Amino acid sequence: MKKCIIIPDSFKGSLSSREVCDIMGDSARRHFPGCEVRAIPIADGGEGSVDAFLAALGGERVALAAKGPYMEDIEAYYGLLPGGGTAVIEMASCAGLSLVGADRRAEKTTTYGVGQLMVNAARRGCTKIIMALGGSATNDFGAGAAAAAGIEFFDEEGRPFLPVGETLERVCRIDKAGLDPALAGVEIVTMCDIDNPLYGENGAAHVFAPQKGAGAQTVALLDRGLRRMARVAKRDLGADVSALPGAGAAGGMGGGMVAFFGARLQMGIETLLDAVRFDALLDGADLVFSGEGRIDGQSLRGKVVIGVARRAKRAGVPLIAVVGGLGEGYAGAYGEGVTAIFSINHEALPLEAAIPKSRVNLEIAMDNILRLLAL
Amino acid sequence: MKKCIIIPDSFKGSLSSREVCDIMGDSARRHFPGCEVRAIPIADGGEGSVDAFLAALGGERVALAAKGPYMEDIEAYYGLLPGGGTAVIEMASCAGLSLVGADRRAEKTTTYGVGQLMVNAARRGCTKIIMALGGSATNDFGAGAAAAAGIEFFDEEGRPFLPVGETLERVCRIDKAGLDPALAGVEIVTMCDIDNPLYGENGAAHVFAPQKGAGAQTVALLDRGLRRMARVAKRDLGADVSALPGAGAAGGMGGGMVAFFGARLQMGIETLLDAVRFDALLDGADLVFSGEGRIDGQSLRGKVVIGVARRAKRAGVPLIAVVGGLGEGYAGAYGEGVTAIFSINHEALPLEAAIPKSRVNLEIAMDNILRLLAL
Repeated sequence: MKKCIIIPDSFKGSLSSREVCDIMGDSARRHFPGCEVRAIPIADGGEGSVDAFLAALGGERVALAAKGPYMEDIEAYYGLLPGGGTAVIEMASCAGLSLVGADRRAEKTTTYGVGQLMVNAARRGCTKIIMALGGSATNDFGAGAAAAAGIEFFDEEGRPFLPVGETLERVCRIDKAGLDPALAGVEIVTMCDIDNPLYGENGAAHVFAPQKGAGAQTVALLDRGLRRMARVAKRDLGADVSALPGAGAAGGMGGGMVAFFGARLQMGIETLLDAVRFDALLDGADLVFSGEGRIDGQSLRGKVVIGVARRAKRAGVPLIAVVGGLGEGYAGAYGEGVTAIFSINHEALPLEAAIPKSRVNLEIAMDNILRLLAL
Repeated sequence: MKKCIIIPDSFKGSLSSREVCDIMGDSARRHFPGCEVRAIPIADGGEGSVDAFLAALGGERVALAAKGPYMEDIEAYYGLLPGGGTAVIEMASCAGLSLVGADRRAEKTTTYGVGQLMVNAARRGCTKIIMALGGSATNDFGAGAAAAAGIEFFDEEGRPFLPVGETLERVCRIDKAGLDPALAGVEIVTMCDIDNPLYGENGAAHVFAPQKGAGAQTVALLDRGLRRMARVAKRDLGADVSALPGAGAAGGMGGGMVAFFGARLQMGIETLLDAVRFDALLDGADLVFSGEGRIDGQSLRGKVVIGVARRAKRAGVPLIAVVGGLGEGYAGAYGEGVTAIFSINHEALPLEAAIPKSRVNLEIAMDNILRLLAL
């Protein structure tokens, strides 16, 4: 083995992806002393995305004042990748559930602050914005963010207003003319790991608003609002997001990012792999090591190991997954480019007893895998 | 991989060594269709040894009437390996704890029946006897077996008698002249996996007699008896077993087998590996798969995986161990010829939940190991 790439997710509840990288890298270098080891700790969207990008690529964290979910003043942040051309924004930093605590009212909250971060990044000269959706307290279709960026919303009497979830159904016209010119031409990639549509029984309101404090009546109101926005956006912005997979992410902000900003929705892991130029890294690699807390049937959609495996497979590089546990449906991973999967469990122990041993168990697993590879 | 050898112990409490062989073999053939797979299920002494030999080598089970631990009539058996030249005898079949139930009196029990089996095998024409020690209810130094084979014991008044544990200290002279001529020239290998000496604080009486029903006074009596036998055997038979490691096995029968019959004490696994001509099998093999329920510091003495690994190492053939669990001290196995160790645990589960999954978990582990090997 002359070159290997180490690119794991965290093992939730026990090891960060940085720690997993360190353990895997140490083991690879010990068994193959001359081997070039490239380690990329990753997280696949949601809270922690900014830090994941900064950890993988370097760059800095930009702090600034912005509006929170209830238009209160908060201190927010985004990530500026090396070179300064790309910003990574976590929508949860201004519109996240963690900001509202127990006061969950999906019908009142706004993504306004997220738009402020976008404008700030664009004015700073960024030509690309990576937007991480997830963990939102909102159901406003991203209308708040659009408003902060200069897009205007009008009611049936032609009066401009700032829509929130409960007032989306009063939007009669959208005018994009006032969009901050700094945002024109900015490429926006939106990280989105679910494929729910905007509205309907699998839409944002029905599936996710209950976690955000909405009762049945509110859910129905929010769902109607999202339907309305799809119709108006199609007419006024020329963007049809009514059946777009992922449009229902983050209270409809998935759809809003596409309609308002011409963003591209993409799996978080794909976005990160693009950002680190993973395909180029694969060139000349003998092996990829990846891993996550658990691999199962659900992993086949958008999780780290599978996302990495698909690219490794395309490049003809084998991938070994080291995981906390294997669950039902894990075997589908083989077809996606995972060559072999090993669990770090070395003894029959319940989870609470196994978790504290994660570090040493990962060391043991890697050691034995590399012993086999060194044969 | 063109040729591999599969030679596991059982996974205690979940899979027999035969089942482990089948699972490992199926997996090897699936991933390496042209591969020559030699599977040898083993057990390393104690109860089940006869069946283990018969499973590994073929042969038949010989049933016969014999004396039990209290000289009662029982139906006993031994194994006759193919060709008929070698018998495998389990001393437990005539002198085992499982025969006495709750009636454990180490000071009264005899190995007489074991000698009857030996004589029967020798008269049948066997030139080699493999004796498996372990699971004994006795502490008679094997004097009962010797008596059944024609060796005589005399008390201080010169009267012949059949010694048991409590009367060993009355033995004043041993006469080997009456030994059944059929046994002359028979090679006797005794499988013995402990290295306790005959007497003293680590000896047969102190360490093992309590499990056989002996209280403190009886232990002291039995220990004095074993000391006496060592002294008389040295003088009358010319065999000094007073400090021999393993002499304390099976109530001193380890020592008795050497003193009365000139037997060789040997690790069970070594005996079995010799019997299957393991060194010759290794010739041309690319890989050995072994396994057992657990590998830990204790495994370094005489357990299956390590015994196999030492020979594989000598032959330069790598060995992969697949085990139920890894315990403290497992890493010593690497120095003994184990290349890599994998556990079959794929999820954090307590033992009682993991045991029923042993079969599928072993299949999964083998599948992934072979995927890696096929890289």
